[in-house]
Amino acid sequence: MADTYDFGLVGLGVMGRNFILNVADNGFTAFGNDLDEEKVSALIKEGGDSNKVNATSDVKTFVQSLTTPRKIMLLVPAGKIVDSVIEGLLPHLDKGDIIIDGGNSFYTDTDRREAYLKEKGINFFGAGVSGGAEGARKGPSIMPGGSKEAYQHVKPIFEAVSAKYKGEPCVAYLGPKSAGNYVKMVHNGIEYGLMQLTSEIYDLLKKAGGLTNDELHKTYSEWNEGRLQSFLVEITSEIFDQKDDLTDNDLVDMILDKAKQKGTGKWTSQNAMDLGIPVPTIDIAVSMREISALKAERIKADELYGRPVPNAVDKEDFTVKAEQALYFAFIITYAQGMHQLADASKEYGYELELGEIAKIWRAGCIIRAALLADITKAYQTDKDLQNLLLSSSFVEKVQSTVDAARELVSYGAANGIPLPGLSNALTYFDAYTSSRLPLNLIQAQRDYFGSHTYERLDREGIFHTEWER
Amino acid sequence: MADTYDFGLVGLGVMGRNFILNVADNGFTAFGNDLDEEKVSALIKEGGDSNKVNATSDVKTFVQSLTTPRKIMLLVPAGKIVDSVIEGLLPHLDKGDIIIDGGNSFYTDTDRREAYLKEKGINFFGAGVSGGAEGARKGPSIMPGGSKEAYQHVKPIFEAVSAKYKGEPCVAYLGPKSAGNYVKMVHNGIEYGLMQLTSEIYDLLKKAGGLTNDELHKTYSEWNEGRLQSFLVEITSEIFDQKDDLTDNDLVDMILDKAKQKGTGKWTSQNAMDLGIPVPTIDIAVSMREISALKAERIKADELYGRPVPNAVDKEDFTVKAEQALYFAFIITYAQGMHQLADASKEYGYELELGEIAKIWRAGCIIRAALLADITKAYQTDKDLQNLLLSSSFVEKVQSTVDAARELVSYGAANGIPLPGLSNALTYFDAYTSSRLPLNLIQAQRDYFGSHTYERLDREGIFHTEWER
Repeated sequence: MADTYDFGLVGLGVMGRNFILNVADNGFTAFGNDLDEEKVSALIKEGGDSNKVNATSDVKTFVQSLTTPRKIMLLVPAGKIVDSVIEGLLPHLDKGDIIIDGGNSFYTDTDRREAYLKEKGINFFGAGVSGGAEGARKGPSIMPGGSKEAYQHVKPIFEAVSAKYKGEPCVAYLGPKSAGNYVKMVHNGIEYGLMQLTSEIYDLLKKAGGLTNDELHKTYSEWNEGRLQSFLVEITSEIFDQKDDLTDNDLVDMILDKAKQKGTGKWTSQNAMDLGIPVPTIDIAVSMREISALKAERIKADELYGRPVPNAVDKEDFTVKAEQALYFAFIITYAQGMHQLADASKEYGYELELGEIAKIWRAGCIIRAALLADITKAYQTDKDLQNLLLSSSFVEKVQSTVDAARELVSYGAANGIPLPGLSNALTYFDAYTSSRLPLNLIQAQRDYFGSHTYERLDREGIFHTEWER
Repeated sequence: MADTYDFGLVGLGVMGRNFILNVADNGFTAFGNDLDEEKVSALIKEGGDSNKVNATSDVKTFVQSLTTPRKIMLLVPAGKIVDSVIEGLLPHLDKGDIIIDGGNSFYTDTDRREAYLKEKGINFFGAGVSGGAEGARKGPSIMPGGSKEAYQHVKPIFEAVSAKYKGEPCVAYLGPKSAGNYVKMVHNGIEYGLMQLTSEIYDLLKKAGGLTNDELHKTYSEWNEGRLQSFLVEITSEIFDQKDDLTDNDLVDMILDKAKQKGTGKWTSQNAMDLGIPVPTIDIAVSMREISALKAERIKADELYGRPVPNAVDKEDFTVKAEQALYFAFIITYAQGMHQLADASKEYGYELELGEIAKIWRAGCIIRAALLADITKAYQTDKDLQNLLLSSSFVEKVQSTVDAARELVSYGAANGIPLPGLSNALTYFDAYTSSRLPLNLIQAQRDYFGSHTYERLDREGIFHTEWER
């Protein structure tokens, strides 16, 4: 049995188990490893008699079962576990073997591990994997970075198991170092933004439009047939259709409104701030998860302040506007994320091709959407596009939908329905398209109190004024 | 001359020079040190024949001129310079001497330096200093943390030089470790928020209300006589009155609208995300400085998209509403910052008393405002107040002004005038006061695609659903 398996995978949770079965489905043999004997048995059972899938809890047996150079993917939680799994593998590996971190590791951890393992002759790279449990099983979007040479050994497997968009695999080598984990991080940041937007439009349609869950199901279903077609809109539609097993209600109404997070959205925002790239729709999505967690405080505050009663609206017209506004805000969210990637590419030497990234996001991943075909084209047309909003192909899409965003944000503000994601998409748009912003006043204030100096509109140089007081 | 000076200060830039002259004005003798001979000469000249102020570029002479335990304050740029100044001082110090970092050092750097110097028998603590150049000279707000025993030696000097609010010094020992630098960081985050808000209200009054600089000067002056009384509103008023030396225009119109930042606002936002505390008005203020820096892109985008022509408004009514909205948003910004401090206090063991902090911000510092007297009272009344919005003393202030914020945000959204700070203050308020938010949908989505589980409204426990597809 030794030396015969094409691919090894450590971490047989739902993602790992599904990924390995996917590998086997595509004609490769795969060997799994997990400390948990139950997970090992479960995989062997699920793998059936095919001889294509096997598993063990013993690391040495696991490593020795793989053909060289060994291709070992880790699908374990980000953090110290990754380091300890690597240390466990190391004594059994040979030079030239390849470890792929498929988890959501922070990009600097990936750079550190790559350098550490390079010294030992082991190839290491990060590959973001998106698509959730179902994607892992049927075809995820895979975002590998690191050594291009090492990637060549894994390429046939990744191309086979990945999702396909019109026949094209949703995987591509993205760039050196931690490019793979970085791109996946921003993917997740965009995901946070899109999820926040779908949730606040739901709130608006429910509270102002009075839509029932059944109507919401139909509305999101219809939207998913059009330009909003996307995985998140699709599953949102299905969520509204789900009955609760424990009561007679719809399940969505029984779920507690405290959203959890695992950190990738937060990292995206924090890193965007380090780069100096504005991603306010993502930032506010992170903030809203935080506010949601403060449920006890919110209940107290609600009692103290109460809520306005929303003005009546024309339900049908309002729903049409909601589709337009959501489309507008989706565009802005992708624009912010792509902007961050463009800047990170320069800052960290990732040599990213944004058109390639949009391309492999068209299927398999959580943020897959019809819109990504347009985004792919925009970046293929202009590789140096600084911001999606500057692509002529997006001007009409934005101009024809921004007025709906204006109307809904106005309505939400006036009627006490919080639309923070949509608001931030709109103010971002209005600020980004303003040749003149009022931040001249901020520079004046900074010079006034801290002698921080300012630049001028009419001539070059750095100026300071002794302000009259 | 040896051993006779009460206080030493390293870094004779504008802040350092002013601070040392302030110390001398208050009856202490002070010795300055800077590598730059010109700055040394300038201080000696300005110090006059009083014998109270002296300076040298020689570190050994500097240290030997101070009474023991030596009290040496650093007012140098944050970062590696602080470490190198410390290394330069170390060979000349005795056990029990005290170094105070008065700069905007990142709080973990302060913790590291305190531990490092403790091993050598040297006391080290961070003390945030706010008030700009003028504050340093005439009385800043000072935020010391660290060893309470070490602080006792410096206390008489700090209490003498600090700003006074109705006779009370604007300095107090805040808590162990890096409490001083941390509180100053959040102070600066609040400052970012308030500055952004004053700048966008200026934009709105100018573009929609058609106010001239002269009218803006009068408006902000009047506001400064009322409940908005604050350093930032006061200087904003004066900025509109400042003529340009180089042209016939008002200076504010000649200043480039690219705002710079030194990092404390960004740190506040990034750290709030680590804590899980929402501070979206501060976050967006950071984003707006970033967007402002993208001037070339903004000009391109403006050409592509154009801008709506704002609807006419009733100038006087609009100005009244602007005052209300600004007051509302100021409250929200302080509430967010104080919320962050409350949480950081638990997380980092700072033992902060928020009433004490608000108290020492009432005068001297950049965010000083009439409002801080009310905030002080709110936290003195309830030491465990989780959020300012939950204080009964703030309910009426907020309820009487939030409608103006609703109206202006609606107007800005409809008319393409970006009010991101005000929008985020309002959506924060609307979300924080919502007992039910739509983030149940986000938990449903997370469970749908990633089996991340959810909680329920009607019973305890962790649940997962096999969603129908």
